[in-house]
Amino acid sequence: LLSSSANATALASFLCARFSTISSQLSDATHAIDNTYLLFSAYLVFAMQLGFAMLCAGSVRAKNTMNIMLTNVLDAAAGALSYYLFGFAFAFGAPSNGFIGRHFFGLKAYPSPNGDYSFFLYQWAFAIAAAGITSGSIAERTQFVAYLIYSSFLTGFVYPVVSHWFWSRDGWASPIRPNNLLFDSGAIDFAGSGVVHMVGGIAGLWGALIEGPRIGRFDRAGRSVALRGHSASLVVLGTFLLWFGWYGFNPGSFLTIMKGYGGGGGYYGQWSAVGRTAVTTTLAGCTAALTTLFSKRLLVGHWNVIDVCNGLLGGFAAITSGCSVVEPWAAIICGFVAAWVLIGFNMLAAKFKYDDPLEAAQLHGGCGAWGLLFTGLFATKAYVNEVYPGLSGRPYGMFMGGGGKLLGAQIIQILVITGWVTATMGPLFYVLKKMNLLRISREDETAGMDLTRHGGFAYVYHDEEDISMRPTFMMSKIEPNNASPSTDGQRSPSNV
Amino acid sequence: LLSSSANATALASFLCARFSTISSQLSDATHAIDNTYLLFSAYLVFAMQLGFAMLCAGSVRAKNTMNIMLTNVLDAAAGALSYYLFGFAFAFGAPSNGFIGRHFFGLKAYPSPNGDYSFFLYQWAFAIAAAGITSGSIAERTQFVAYLIYSSFLTGFVYPVVSHWFWSRDGWASPIRPNNLLFDSGAIDFAGSGVVHMVGGIAGLWGALIEGPRIGRFDRAGRSVALRGHSASLVVLGTFLLWFGWYGFNPGSFLTIMKGYGGGGGYYGQWSAVGRTAVTTTLAGCTAALTTLFSKRLLVGHWNVIDVCNGLLGGFAAITSGCSVVEPWAAIICGFVAAWVLIGFNMLAAKFKYDDPLEAAQLHGGCGAWGLLFTGLFATKAYVNEVYPGLSGRPYGMFMGGGGKLLGAQIIQILVITGWVTATMGPLFYVLKKMNLLRISREDETAGMDLTRHGGFAYVYHDEEDISMRPTFMMSKIEPNNASPSTDGQRSPSNV
Amino acid sequence: LLSSSANATALASFLCARFSTISSQLSDATHAIDNTYLLFSAYLVFAMQLGFAMLCAGSVRAKNTMNIMLTNVLDAAAGALSYYLFGFAFAFGAPSNGFIGRHFFGLKAYPSPNGDYSFFLYQWAFAIAAAGITSGSIAERTQFVAYLIYSSFLTGFVYPVVSHWFWSRDGWASPIRPNNLLFDSGAIDFAGSGVVHMVGGIAGLWGALIEGPRIGRFDRAGRSVALRGHSASLVVLGTFLLWFGWYGFNPGSFLTIMKGYGGGGGYYGQWSAVGRTAVTTTLAGCTAALTTLFSKRLLVGHWNVIDVCNGLLGGFAAITSGCSVVEPWAAIICGFVAAWVLIGFNMLAAKFKYDDPLEAAQLHGGCGAWGLLFTGLFATKAYVNEVYPGLSGRPYGMFMGGGGKLLGAQIIQILVITGWVTATMGPLFYVLKKMNLLRISREDETAGMDLTRHGGFAYVYHDEEDISMRPTFMMSKIEPNNASPSTDGQRSPSNV
Repeated sequence: LLSSSANATALASFLCARFSTISSQLSDATHAIDNTYLLFSAYLVFAMQLGFAMLCAGSVRAKNTMNIMLTNVLDAAAGALSYYLFGFAFAFGAPSNGFIGRHFFGLKAYPSPNGDYSFFLYQWAFAIAAAGITSGSIAERTQFVAYLIYSSFLTGFVYPVVSHWFWSRDGWASPIRPNNLLFDSGAIDFAGSGVVHMVGGIAGLWGALIEGPRIGRFDRAGRSVALRGHSASLVVLGTFLLWFGWYGFNPGSFLTIMKGYGGGGGYYGQWSAVGRTAVTTTLAGCTAALTTLFSKRLLVGHWNVIDVCNGLLGGFAAITSGCSVVEPWAAIICGFVAAWVLIGFNMLAAKFKYDDPLEAAQLHGGCGAWGLLFTGLFATKAYVNEVYPGLSGRPYGMFMGGGGKLLGAQIIQILVITGWVTATMGPLFYVLKKMNLLRISREDETAGMDLTRHGGFAYVYHDEEDISMRPTFMMSKIEPNNASPSTDGQRSPSNV
Repeated sequence: LLSSSANATALASFLCARFSTISSQLSDATHAIDNTYLLFSAYLVFAMQLGFAMLCAGSVRAKNTMNIMLTNVLDAAAGALSYYLFGFAFAFGAPSNGFIGRHFFGLKAYPSPNGDYSFFLYQWAFAIAAAGITSGSIAERTQFVAYLIYSSFLTGFVYPVVSHWFWSRDGWASPIRPNNLLFDSGAIDFAGSGVVHMVGGIAGLWGALIEGPRIGRFDRAGRSVALRGHSASLVVLGTFLLWFGWYGFNPGSFLTIMKGYGGGGGYYGQWSAVGRTAVTTTLAGCTAALTTLFSKRLLVGHWNVIDVCNGLLGGFAAITSGCSVVEPWAAIICGFVAAWVLIGFNMLAAKFKYDDPLEAAQLHGGCGAWGLLFTGLFATKAYVNEVYPGLSGRPYGMFMGGGGKLLGAQIIQILVITGWVTATMGPLFYVLKKMNLLRISREDETAGMDLTRHGGFAYVYHDEEDISMRPTFMMSKIEPNNASPSTDGQRSPSNV
Repeated sequence: LLSSSANATALASFLCARFSTISSQLSDATHAIDNTYLLFSAYLVFAMQLGFAMLCAGSVRAKNTMNIMLTNVLDAAAGALSYYLFGFAFAFGAPSNGFIGRHFFGLKAYPSPNGDYSFFLYQWAFAIAAAGITSGSIAERTQFVAYLIYSSFLTGFVYPVVSHWFWSRDGWASPIRPNNLLFDSGAIDFAGSGVVHMVGGIAGLWGALIEGPRIGRFDRAGRSVALRGHSASLVVLGTFLLWFGWYGFNPGSFLTIMKGYGGGGGYYGQWSAVGRTAVTTTLAGCTAALTTLFSKRLLVGHWNVIDVCNGLLGGFAAITSGCSVVEPWAAIICGFVAAWVLIGFNMLAAKFKYDDPLEAAQLHGGCGAWGLLFTGLFATKAYVNEVYPGLSGRPYGMFMGGGGKLLGAQIIQILVITGWVTATMGPLFYVLKKMNLLRISREDETAGMDLTRHGGFAYVYHDEEDISMRPTFMMSKIEPNNASPSTDGQRSPSNV
């Protein structure tokens, strides 16, 4: 076989062809695995939008259910168009400057070797989450037109710019920037405690502050009167769906899974880090839930499932920043503190008569900020270097011996996000208010927006046909006072 | 090492063994990746059945909720047995003639190199969707026995035959047929705008036409009176779940993901096409939702979440045919038109006093047909050849310069599906009507099927124990007139 | 190229390097595929917790909805901490003795070549299912403190020990034990008909027996009075979610998917077995659902969706043991019998005045036990050897010609699980009862735990603002008798 030079050449070309084929197949396998991983993660993150819709619906009063659900559907729908047209370009258009991207408008010149449709879909699912958080804060009293305006602005511009800063290769505070890293580190906000949760929470804070509390939320003596949501079942459904989706949100943020660590070929690789991220996420949320359960039992006197759900979500919002770079035991600390952060901010809110129907600013803003600090304190050296490789001497968590530089970058992130969202969303809400576009009328608020703006209430448990069964003395109630009889389908729900 | 012929032989066999092992492992990897992809896609498509159950439940009146949910559970359950026993064989049994398959009854001689269990599961999840669509059209007035009969016939025979025509290698109108393609092209119905949605919608059209409208749906003057569904929350929940599942329905229809395009080894491959399909699906649905929002605001005067949900689903139903072969920008056109198609068909339905509680015929039938035309107009050359490879000079979208042949095939598909479903389901519903098996009695319809046929209402928000709290004058209402007191569990819901 | 010895050496090292790289990449691909598969399966299993929460919520009366949902959230949350700290170590800590594991406390020395975080997450999702089953049996009458105690004990100790016996390599009855297999076979409980469902069901049996029936469940004459759940929609939602999640539970129990059978490289491998498992699971559940539908129609006289849902779940619980080692046609037998097992046990329960709000003991205990027997009867030779390879002459199903040894091992499993759970949970419930910690007071039970212990009812469909619309004669009912007016947020639901 090898006795002549001709044979040698034949062997060489045979080997080259085989190795080339194998290499090509391995490359295809890598793309197929990573895209499968990222696409299904994106689907899970999308499911969070459903979770948020159910959580919001259950947390408001029955008379505003249609309104809040419509905003959740539209966050996703309007967000898809605006993110396709320009949001994605602002966030990840490369090459670009450190402030804002400027390529890939309408997915032009996309996909490329640096990004595929799966990445666009994944980032869209993230983008629509932020506006959803905000709509919770200003629920039950905001004009629908105001919602359409702020939601487009937030999803199409405010959020993409923030994600550019911290997540794109060109962002000025990004930890994956090739050089000139902020404090030699960049801020580590792996899945978005700051980029998603704080942005949505701070925007909600300004909206709710400028609108003021709902009618009846504080009584004449100034005491807090809870306006309970209409369905705890929807709240629990929504919370579990968010939990389910968070497994796409946090572990999915690795974007790829087929990557061996330490040269590859061993049992340890990105798949382990992905699994660990799912574990830290779980532990932080669960610890926060348990902490809330017992704290509330002591503070309020009963076992409250709504509070436990909020505590759980606070734990998730907090761990989202550091989920990939901390040990599981640290995640327990993260969740424990997150529960108290939420309790504390809720006390503050009650004191300052701040009314946020979903505690969104407290939960996503407060726990999100704590999450960024937590990462600066507990990120481990090994994990930071595995997740953000290629840089020697990268700072890590202060309590783990990594110095204060990472913590500094995290604090900068908190300040910058707070400032940017305040500077953009604050004036927007203020102008809307001055133009009388922000808050609904007192009559609308009392009657419920569903009846006055959305074609009727969300629930009709009893029908006209049932009338025959009713005792005569109740017949006077069939037509509620503020709904005019009509034949075009607007029947008000029986409110007996 | 290589100095002798013996060494050369040793090297040769060493190389052969190594390459053989590697090739075998790569083959295993391909199978593992593709099956993982297809199985999880199948699970998502199955989740659509849950979505449809919730959508239907929320869209009917409370008194028929148990009935409609039972039909949805049974679509899946009875469909599994019938599809296992013969439906799958009719659809994909190969080799076969162009009209109907005739192998794999009871999964005999299965799996084979041409198909695995994952494919069966995926196709089952599709099969059960069609019957679900139809049950929406004839909701609130159909005898349960009639449902059992038409559902088995549709899932077990009518639908499998259609899927054989357009999706199997032997189907007479299939685009993957080895030769003798219809108009040199075959119809392109990638994920089933026609095969699934039109089949279900046309069947529903005939059912609803033959049954006639629900009592009270049109008043004595002939004006339309909306009979509102009892829970918008369930409608939104169902819609989001359908959206979630559509990511299995459309992108999953590639069946495999590990396939490089252009020889393989590059960044571009089936994984990109899968991702693009997810993007086109998203954009079409979202555009349709937004179009519906603003159109309805102008036409009706309020912002209606139910209409937005229907618009969204109409956009999805339309893009389902061409999702894999059109550009994202075209998907926006698809969704925009789909919204108007739905609005138009709904106007027609009102005019002709056609009553379809879920707008299923309009939505799945109308938007599905539009989707088939759309593919004939906008399919791009490159994508058509990537998705349906191996044929030179394949026609593509007329507006993209691909001639009229593909559009012709699409029109044939619309006509043939309409004809086939009309010829099979029309007589079936007619015979059921003549045998007095189709429509429930006037008394049952007024009281609600749940009470008279399904053991009681779906909801019991107040219990006997609450009676003690009620003022005396209400006690006369504890036992509704048409429910006899009993000890076997049939307690009617408190309808105060 | 090859003319000299130097070239030969160069070629050799070139080949070694290339093969080493390829081998390393293939290893990475295998890890990435298997971990992706296992992680997404774990997410699906986690979704079952949501399904169970909704099923339970819908199956109890409205006044206890908050209570039961809180227990479901806490099963997951408390289970995460206890499973992380010691449950996982008890179950899978290796090396260990046959009774209990003793490594990996707090995930110390984890991950290792033998297990990754994905495996921990998957097993956690299983662990929390058992306690959820039990909470269904004792719903609507159990003190919350009792729940906290038994749930921790069950998830943290009783269940992990059982899973160690049957699923770890060291377990005394495990079929993957290297040697000394029970009856040369070990018990085959692939995904946990016994380990999960019987454990939860038997624990629930003792709890419900010791507590006794709910007030009003049997009338003075001893006749059974159904206390209907408050929402069939939630029951159907929960059932479908459980179905969805079962595709993670059963097929996911393979833990890996990239493994060719018969040497590899062919079309047949673990991916086929995974798909077949999804098919057997589907067929068993669906057959049980249909069997229940028609049986109940004959026995009770109406088409009952709640019963169909329970039948479906009974079929799933039964096939869970043998899903991977039986033919699809056998799964149909499994489901058919499971439906009758459930009907039979329900009749027994009524006869002995056993009250189980979710039929959990009958369903998970009874059908689970039938599932173990079924595996001993119908497991096929080929599948048993593919799924549990490396042992020659392994016994298989008795009806398939495999002798009685496997059936013997299955019977041992039934006895041992019954005994172990009885010996641990029985005394626990008894002691709780003696300490007056088990059952709530008669007043609490009548008023509902949500009002007295959990801060208010789950639903508030009508608000204070609605009062103005109410006729004057109804004003006396605004404040229910047993709720004191307060300003701290406890507003009782309008119970008009």
